[in-house]
Amino acid sequence: MVETTHSGNIGAAARVMANLGLADLRLVRPRVFPAQDATARAAGADHILEQASVCDTLEAAVAECSFVIGATARRRAIGSPLLDPENAASHLVKASGRGSTALVFGQEAAGLSNEHLDLCHAYVRIGVENDFSSLNVATAVAILIYEVRRQSDSHTASEEIAYEIERRLKGTVPMTVSEFERLMEHLERVGHRIGFLRGPRTQLLRKLRRLLRQGLCSQEDINILRGVLTSMEHTIEKGETTSDR
Amino acid sequence: MVETTHSGNIGAAARVMANLGLADLRLVRPRVFPAQDATARAAGADHILEQASVCDTLEAAVAECSFVIGATARRRAIGSPLLDPENAASHLVKASGRGSTALVFGQEAAGLSNEHLDLCHAYVRIGVENDFSSLNVATAVAILIYEVRRQSDSHTASEEIAYEIERRLKGTVPMTVSEFERLMEHLERVGHRIGFLRGPRTQLLRKLRRLLRQGLCSQEDINILRGVLTSMEHTIEKGETTSDR
Repeated sequence: MVETTHSGNIGAAARVMANLGLADLRLVRPRVFPAQDATARAAGADHILEQASVCDTLEAAVAECSFVIGATARRRAIGSPLLDPENAASHLVKASGRGSTALVFGQEAAGLSNEHLDLCHAYVRIGVENDFSSLNVATAVAILIYEVRRQSDSHTASEEIAYEIERRLKGTVPMTVSEFERLMEHLERVGHRIGFLRGPRTQLLRKLRRLLRQGLCSQEDINILRGVLTSMEHTIEKGETTSDR
Repeated sequence: MVETTHSGNIGAAARVMANLGLADLRLVRPRVFPAQDATARAAGADHILEQASVCDTLEAAVAECSFVIGATARRRAIGSPLLDPENAASHLVKASGRGSTALVFGQEAAGLSNEHLDLCHAYVRIGVENDFSSLNVATAVAILIYEVRRQSDSHTASEEIAYEIERRLKGTVPMTVSEFERLMEHLERVGHRIGFLRGPRTQLLRKLRRLLRQGLCSQEDINILRGVLTSMEHTIEKGETTSDR
């Protein structure tokens, strides 16, 4: 982070670095550091702040890096490629196999100077709205680190998401076709007794079968189940009225 | 944003919403709002704060939505699918073609309660380090909105992942949270009258809620529904016996 004005942003960046597993924060001429604001916004990521190195120049900060990407709000390329976050992260992830890499963020108001940009191999610009483009620097840090993490994890991520039913069944016994069919017979029996199903009503039963197996999703599904409940209430009321007589 | 404690976080969220082109911010019982902190951190995104609606309940805030994802730090699934940001964003982008959608963020320290999570169709968890997992809520907002934006801008990514509901909804109107909640109230009322639910029975209602939304899958699910049907039969028989006398 270069010439950061608000130390709170340093703390917020440290926090999200700790959240997402990065550790090496370098500060080029921060306005105030260490700072109370930074510690407060770090919310416990003190180790990142304590280990942060403070440098006099960006050149010193990225000296041993083999690939450096500078974050910029400028749309016009300045000699090096201007990437979107996905491509920037992809380059960073690949390059990290070959040596140290860095993401560079400029001063809140002014961004990175041409001299800073000269030190970068590529630039990244987060796509923002034209009429509200001023992105908080710690937010930019969060988004870009998230994107780097996403891409370095992408192979494991897909494995992590267990097959939906698999997970829901955890610790329970899956229903069999036969058990489901018995339930449907039971429902049909009750449906006739409460007057919800008159005659075979194959179509309605098929809808009930689908919504019970797959879950409610449409207004029609809601209406069907409310129909069942209303029939049930009428049946109860009739019974009560009869017994009142 | 539900019960947000630090109004600065509301401002930071508004700012990144404006950066990334979202406009509809809803605040459920914020501790302080409007607030100086919020305005300062919004850094000019005043229109988002001015248009933000303040609601008494999460249910009211998402009433007309047809798809709601809740952000949670919990690893343990709570009944609905627990997605990573990519999958969550993909579902949201698709669902937004069918109706209103929402991302829900809980209180800074406590997150979303079980009652809040009950209103969600799915949950999203941002992958963070085990030993430093406390993510700032505005950072979580930034990361998830970024991911939604990234995917809505690149059609191919979302097209690859087929979403089950899509197919089922074909030609029907998606149910809203409010419609589903009315159904659950109706079910609870009838459940009490037929003696299936005695007292509040929160656990059983939560299970019914899950199985109706996601579909039956275990023997336990079958047993619950058969319990409802049997209670109903007993109620009818009692009515008939009385009226036979």
